[in-house]
Amino acid sequence: MIVVMQPGAGRAEIAEVVARAEAAGLEVHEAQDDGRAVLGVIGRGAARLRDALAALPGIERVVDVAPPYPLASREFRRASTVVEVGGVAIGGPRPVLIAGPCAVESYEQLLSIAEAVKAGGAQLLRGGAFKPRTSPYAFRGLGAEGLRMLREVGDRTGLPVVTEILAPSDLDLFVQHADVLQVGARNMQNFPLLDEVGRAGKPVLLKRGLAATIEELLLAAEYVLARGNAKLILCERGIRTFETATRNTPDLAAIPVVKHLSHLPILFDPSHSAGVRRYVTPLARAAIAAGADGLLVEVHVKPEEALCDGHQALLPAEFAALARDAAALRAALP
Amino acid sequence: MIVVMQPGAGRAEIAEVVARAEAAGLEVHEAQDDGRAVLGVIGRGAARLRDALAALPGIERVVDVAPPYPLASREFRRASTVVEVGGVAIGGPRPVLIAGPCAVESYEQLLSIAEAVKAGGAQLLRGGAFKPRTSPYAFRGLGAEGLRMLREVGDRTGLPVVTEILAPSDLDLFVQHADVLQVGARNMQNFPLLDEVGRAGKPVLLKRGLAATIEELLLAAEYVLARGNAKLILCERGIRTFETATRNTPDLAAIPVVKHLSHLPILFDPSHSAGVRRYVTPLARAAIAAGADGLLVEVHVKPEEALCDGHQALLPAEFAALARDAAALRAALP
Amino acid sequence: MIVVMQPGAGRAEIAEVVARAEAAGLEVHEAQDDGRAVLGVIGRGAARLRDALAALPGIERVVDVAPPYPLASREFRRASTVVEVGGVAIGGPRPVLIAGPCAVESYEQLLSIAEAVKAGGAQLLRGGAFKPRTSPYAFRGLGAEGLRMLREVGDRTGLPVVTEILAPSDLDLFVQHADVLQVGARNMQNFPLLDEVGRAGKPVLLKRGLAATIEELLLAAEYVLARGNAKLILCERGIRTFETATRNTPDLAAIPVVKHLSHLPILFDPSHSAGVRRYVTPLARAAIAAGADGLLVEVHVKPEEALCDGHQALLPAEFAALARDAAALRAALP
Amino acid sequence: MIVVMQPGAGRAEIAEVVARAEAAGLEVHEAQDDGRAVLGVIGRGAARLRDALAALPGIERVVDVAPPYPLASREFRRASTVVEVGGVAIGGPRPVLIAGPCAVESYEQLLSIAEAVKAGGAQLLRGGAFKPRTSPYAFRGLGAEGLRMLREVGDRTGLPVVTEILAPSDLDLFVQHADVLQVGARNMQNFPLLDEVGRAGKPVLLKRGLAATIEELLLAAEYVLARGNAKLILCERGIRTFETATRNTPDLAAIPVVKHLSHLPILFDPSHSAGVRRYVTPLARAAIAAGADGLLVEVHVKPEEALCDGHQALLPAEFAALARDAAALRAALP
Repeated sequence: MIVVMQPGAGRAEIAEVVARAEAAGLEVHEAQDDGRAVLGVIGRGAARLRDALAALPGIERVVDVAPPYPLASREFRRASTVVEVGGVAIGGPRPVLIAGPCAVESYEQLLSIAEAVKAGGAQLLRGGAFKPRTSPYAFRGLGAEGLRMLREVGDRTGLPVVTEILAPSDLDLFVQHADVLQVGARNMQNFPLLDEVGRAGKPVLLKRGLAATIEELLLAAEYVLARGNAKLILCERGIRTFETATRNTPDLAAIPVVKHLSHLPILFDPSHSAGVRRYVTPLARAAIAAGADGLLVEVHVKPEEALCDGHQALLPAEFAALARDAAALRAALP
Repeated sequence: MIVVMQPGAGRAEIAEVVARAEAAGLEVHEAQDDGRAVLGVIGRGAARLRDALAALPGIERVVDVAPPYPLASREFRRASTVVEVGGVAIGGPRPVLIAGPCAVESYEQLLSIAEAVKAGGAQLLRGGAFKPRTSPYAFRGLGAEGLRMLREVGDRTGLPVVTEILAPSDLDLFVQHADVLQVGARNMQNFPLLDEVGRAGKPVLLKRGLAATIEELLLAAEYVLARGNAKLILCERGIRTFETATRNTPDLAAIPVVKHLSHLPILFDPSHSAGVRRYVTPLARAAIAAGADGLLVEVHVKPEEALCDGHQALLPAEFAALARDAAALRAALP
Repeated sequence: MIVVMQPGAGRAEIAEVVARAEAAGLEVHEAQDDGRAVLGVIGRGAARLRDALAALPGIERVVDVAPPYPLASREFRRASTVVEVGGVAIGGPRPVLIAGPCAVESYEQLLSIAEAVKAGGAQLLRGGAFKPRTSPYAFRGLGAEGLRMLREVGDRTGLPVVTEILAPSDLDLFVQHADVLQVGARNMQNFPLLDEVGRAGKPVLLKRGLAATIEELLLAAEYVLARGNAKLILCERGIRTFETATRNTPDLAAIPVVKHLSHLPILFDPSHSAGVRRYVTPLARAAIAAGADGLLVEVHVKPEEALCDGHQALLPAEFAALARDAAALRAALP
Repeated sequence: MIVVMQPGAGRAEIAEVVARAEAAGLEVHEAQDDGRAVLGVIGRGAARLRDALAALPGIERVVDVAPPYPLASREFRRASTVVEVGGVAIGGPRPVLIAGPCAVESYEQLLSIAEAVKAGGAQLLRGGAFKPRTSPYAFRGLGAEGLRMLREVGDRTGLPVVTEILAPSDLDLFVQHADVLQVGARNMQNFPLLDEVGRAGKPVLLKRGLAATIEELLLAAEYVLARGNAKLILCERGIRTFETATRNTPDLAAIPVVKHLSHLPILFDPSHSAGVRRYVTPLARAAIAAGADGLLVEVHVKPEEALCDGHQALLPAEFAALARDAAALRAALP
């Protein structure tokens, strides 16, 4: 950790930093650079002193050297993590396709979509039973009833089920019915929820928040890993920027950046990023070419009757074409 | 609601929109504008059809006319809402000062800070017992023990207590010990939590999310109002932008914008926006001049020993000076 | 164009809008929606009245229906534009590779890189003679001398030359030496410069500004087209967001969005988006898969000796591998 | 300057950094921190080696210690700079008001507005003769004719004149007619223009770009200062973010941040930030309370007939009230 002092900082202010660092068993190296003191604070646990040092008088800023997410880092684990779900390997050589409706609306709707996406090439089924909605007047899902439908349809079609959990108190219900617990973008920093899914032992799919940096995504991952759950899959789904032509700006750089910094697998959700059907396929193709470990795609048989986000759902035939594209693109890469 | 068709949309596509709107009891007016059809969809509940229409083929975009947050809107209630907490009016002519430490660290720490901020001019005490922290390795608060300390210190000093709730299941505990339930920026769209505090009947302080638009803040407010709780106070605390000189960019325009669009009171938190002590006072002054109903300020007696965010805490003397400034600025305005 | 009145707007305020619209030869349709008047202002040239209407009392907002860039729009020209430069078709079925150093440093440096990128698969040569630099103390290019080197090396290797123009007064010099005039991201809204390159008759490569929306990019394109120059190529190069892991966030959605809204070809610059060598290739692959018409890539034979942006330059062997990837990815798509 | 090596970097890679630094006459201190080497590169001119070092293999990142804008920095000049324009001190104890129309439309329009703002308390007159417009079809100003009107009206009313220059080749014309040369937000990084106004010797008003960091604003200032022109005034005018309720998000933190980092005066433009009349006054008040050295405000006598941005122009009476507020707020501060 590096502490840059203000230009006018005196000996007393530097001495205070040194005293605190040494009291914590750390070593301090001092240098002068362009008229200001720069202190290298070295040793295990230096990061824990970060806030205390930053609050001292005479400090300009504190610069971290090591990543603050040790367990999620590529340094901790050189080999890429592969998460297995019902026989499907996520993070392996073949990109994984997770598809289904935004929301579970009925048993018939879910079954018809599940059969369609399976035929089209999906390996897992997605669908929301508890839906986070920006407006309190929007459809918020079928709840526990929807979870049971997911389980039944998943079993009937042989597709493992991915679904979003909103509240820590629902954990038992989800552990019983879901194969992968999804933590949505709005809950990426819902820490009680991260604690719970970290303790669950089930695979977790953690989506990047709209305004979360990649470092914060990896820190949220660290919560789950630190609770002992290593079956963790990340997902980029677009970030909020000034551009309004798409619902969110797809930060496809997050894919190679996460692969450089971390050992965890990372998927891409083109549906929430595009926000409109016509841009879903090109973005999904781009993510595969960028190295994504798979896609999380919304599909509906009758988008105009969907209770949620029909405008961004692919039709089954479009999804099947995308699955073919994904395989061809992966094969085209070295 | 206005539906703009794509330039090439044909009669069949327009007819489909009309059919669905009329089936929902709505009226449709059609006009041609610059080579494309524009449909005015008029009537109560038009907004509920929004997603279904947006998913139809041939649609370019759907434009809302009415705000999607009826209860929070200024149209619903012309007079500004005043929320009373323990005899203090929030939203009235005098700006309210809520101050205290980032986190409750001990009874002694809390008491000394509470006495200092009361002497300096604070009318309510803030302090975190359950702390949301970006890193799982950071201090996460004293929990229920911290809540009890807040209650005791609040009672002893006569300052009503504001503190952040993280999980819906903690509601009873908070209702028992806190005077105002704070929903933090990271939880602005934690809908199960909004539902719970909406049912609690206690005053709620809702902070704007880092990446939330003002419209989304008002939609989150609508959750609380729709559950029957009208004792609602909003709080701007900075948004995430590309600028890194401050922790978050203070969107002080949110203050007059919220006052134009809504009847709810709005505070400003200069501490989380600045992220560094030296900028807290100028930003706090600016917010008062922009018309904020009060401030939520972090204060610590020994910032360099704080377990959380000491670098952005004012010292008691700085807080007292800010309180004098706030009163003088308000008095200087017409 | 649609004018949404404020909820309380009276007949006099509505009448004023109607009077002004009718005076401009436009038709007005009025409807009531959720308690406010909505006026459809219809007819040729309605957009020109936009600002005047927005300034009237009682107006909530004005919503455009038609795109404000008629010549750049897909409606104006259904077929995609192909720009030919020295026998190379940009916007055709094959993605085009434009490569070379950030800055021309010497004849030898430029020649060795030009030969390397030609061997690797580049069809055009890029290189800066006049460099826009954030700091006044950085290397700003060889100027006119650099332009002459580009011309000589371009002629010797048979690669047409793309280079950035900074000042309108340099136009003659650039027309003489360059094959494509590049307008950089910082100059996307340098309107005197757009006017000049619009009159030049030479192909223009217009890069999206760091904070420009896609609509503003197309409006900047409209400047060039409105001056009579239809040989226009767009280029996405990343936008500024809160994420700092890359130099800019690659908005790859801009590729399908521009293809939907406009007939102009669009390239991608992975070098300025990534800002670091290790992310250039995955982003470039992603852009090709998203449908980009080509790439603009920085390549250097000795990046560590580059006077400009060596950290983001590919080595010749990396570029050749990328060229193979681009061809394979395009072939894999339907 | 601090060089953080990648975790796996070997001796050869470290030796290469050391060799290059020492060849440039710099000293290198090495330390190990959390498993990676950290090199302090110390000495005059270290920053010039930045890019070359960043391009070497084995480097994670390079961290600057000193600000890259020496002449603009507060370290270079402890006392705040005061720029005098026609007897008006900008940067002194009294906030300065610069007001006038967006664009000069006619002699009569300009004169009536100039007289109104003078009566209301303005000390300088603003008005655009060459207007940068997003659309090529919008009114682009009266050009040289407008400049002459500004000069005449300025002389007649005794108000020094501030107006925007767009092209370096127009410098002589502007030096002849204007008292302050404004460089607009879109041209903040138009380096040929910065060079020219840096050589002009006339006071320069430099506006922050929509997507420019405060550091980049100070680097643009450095261009002007490095050309020998110290009569430089900065201006915050809002940045581009995801929020659309205002035209741009006012980053009022820029005011105390610039005052901390630099000796240059800083104004605020509430008109372009708000983008709508009703929010101009609260934002302007906030800027004064945050410590701004003055305001740049658009005023029009008949906003609904303005050829440019009438919707954000104050009426003369509103401006006069704002001038009273500004004086009262400044007086209320210590």
